[in-house]
Amino acid sequence: MASSTGNDVILLAHGDGGLLTHRLLEKYFLPRFDNELLHQLTDAASFPVKPGHMAITTDAFVVDPIFFPAGDIGKLAVCGTVNDLAVSGAKPLYLAASFIIEEGFPLASLERIVASIAKTCSEAGVAIVAGDTKVVGRGQADKIYITTTGIGYLLPEARLGYRRIEPGDCIIINGPLGNHGLSVLLERESFDMDAGIVSDCAPLNGMTERLIRQFPSVKFMRDLTRGGFATNAKEIALQAAVDLRLDEKSIPIDDNVKGITDILGLDPLYLANEGKFLAIISKKEAGKAVDLLQNEFSCTKSCIIGTIDAGKGDVFLKTELGGTRRLNMLTGAPLPRIC
Amino acid sequence: MASSTGNDVILLAHGDGGLLTHRLLEKYFLPRFDNELLHQLTDAASFPVKPGHMAITTDAFVVDPIFFPAGDIGKLAVCGTVNDLAVSGAKPLYLAASFIIEEGFPLASLERIVASIAKTCSEAGVAIVAGDTKVVGRGQADKIYITTTGIGYLLPEARLGYRRIEPGDCIIINGPLGNHGLSVLLERESFDMDAGIVSDCAPLNGMTERLIRQFPSVKFMRDLTRGGFATNAKEIALQAAVDLRLDEKSIPIDDNVKGITDILGLDPLYLANEGKFLAIISKKEAGKAVDLLQNEFSCTKSCIIGTIDAGKGDVFLKTELGGTRRLNMLTGAPLPRIC
Repeated sequence: MASSTGNDVILLAHGDGGLLTHRLLEKYFLPRFDNELLHQLTDAASFPVKPGHMAITTDAFVVDPIFFPAGDIGKLAVCGTVNDLAVSGAKPLYLAASFIIEEGFPLASLERIVASIAKTCSEAGVAIVAGDTKVVGRGQADKIYITTTGIGYLLPEARLGYRRIEPGDCIIINGPLGNHGLSVLLERESFDMDAGIVSDCAPLNGMTERLIRQFPSVKFMRDLTRGGFATNAKEIALQAAVDLRLDEKSIPIDDNVKGITDILGLDPLYLANEGKFLAIISKKEAGKAVDLLQNEFSCTKSCIIGTIDAGKGDVFLKTELGGTRRLNMLTGAPLPRIC
Repeated sequence: MASSTGNDVILLAHGDGGLLTHRLLEKYFLPRFDNELLHQLTDAASFPVKPGHMAITTDAFVVDPIFFPAGDIGKLAVCGTVNDLAVSGAKPLYLAASFIIEEGFPLASLERIVASIAKTCSEAGVAIVAGDTKVVGRGQADKIYITTTGIGYLLPEARLGYRRIEPGDCIIINGPLGNHGLSVLLERESFDMDAGIVSDCAPLNGMTERLIRQFPSVKFMRDLTRGGFATNAKEIALQAAVDLRLDEKSIPIDDNVKGITDILGLDPLYLANEGKFLAIISKKEAGKAVDLLQNEFSCTKSCIIGTIDAGKGDVFLKTELGGTRRLNMLTGAPLPRIC
């Protein structure tokens, strides 16, 4: 529950569409999100379209806590939606942002979140063009929830789809896994274990666009958010009706993440990431794609982590001890509100 | 707070992106929202675009109670977003829907809401093409919140904007005011006053498209939701830098709404509507536009309610007693969670 009281907090009347709603927009939102499109129409923003294909995606963000190491719910809401478009082969352009705020939420926190949204939009090259704010009573939300919807053009070079995945393809990844989920968990539970773990939350559209434009054999991409790497790998295997064969010792996991997940009994392969994706690409181009990520995007730990095999939807992990472990979807061990 | 317990309710694990999330989608959402676009991509839906202008809008719906006479939060979420596009001069096409659900929410209620969304989409001629579901713990939301984002093409004939409004124009309305807000309020507070008042929640895009296509002098439209007619009228007056002169006795308000708002001390001009809009149109075409709404859309109480005058942003209501009342934005009398 939001904890402040007084005049520096969100009131129910901020959400009633009347005078306080207008003042909230004018003071907190419009100056930060200012762009041409936001002001064109009253109930909707309009933008010119050229022939092609557009993509749309939406996500609600309910992360707890709303501020965590190297990120916050605002940054997350932009990155999450930008990244869903990015791994779909689209160039993100416009976002709509909708806020559900608990009565009593500090305006200073709102200001900080809105600033973070604006900064992340600028980094990702997208604009907030439409928005909405609703206020609910104390105990009817936990501080603030944000839904972002994004649209953009599909890159003409993008030819992504489960059907293109075939045996012999390589699976590459842009960096180490588990940092976001673990950093949020540690912050939430106030574990006294500050090992310097920070969220990897970041927009990925710069990388995905370069990969798609440069390597025609990029066949599929997926950001590794809810359910973590393992759940997403399993879903890809099932949908593409192939097996994924992964090599545990090649999957990058930072030492501090490994250490703490070992202590807590968590598997980093099931922790959410907010700045990591996998790409499935021909064997011929996989090495070059990794080179690009390492050299031009500072993804020093980017690497090939496995290959596609003929099969029926299994994900096999060759463990460091030489055994084989079958990965399935996350089940029965919920880490709620990680994004 | 959601009240059911047991296996027939939403669990935290339904929102973790794992197995239960997939089952929820496959059992409850996909069959109802089934359309070509929903299945194309994994993280985003794509659709072809032709040259022109598109419009986008987003709204969070937090109405309490979630089921009310002649509507529910699902129907409202579709109508609200469709109508924002409609009054902006756009033809709504695609919706993205994002759900934040409280742990323990009955699956039967979710099913009912999803069915209502599907039915309303069908009535409005729009398709759900993207979605998301998050689950938060008990007491971290009040049952269910839905954010819908809509996109569509601006009608080529649409020339809407504050700047086109000029003295002498007429203000028309498609029917009686206050029914939605009052019906929700009566349902929420369990007043023992069932006067048969039902929400007016309905998609307006059929009417707005006909008006725009048929009458070149449609200069501005606005749906009369949060803040009610009065708040929206005041905002239009301010933004267009004109005065609105309204005739109280011509503003349609149903007798039962008038009776109950009198008893409760509420002003129907400040109650939210979800199926009402005003249009500002030249004097020459105003009567014909009203005829169209009355004859072809069964808006029997549609009428001209006032005119535009030179001014600086005032809304003057000529009362039935012959006096003049100045209308301002809603302030200090919040009716939270009306939409």
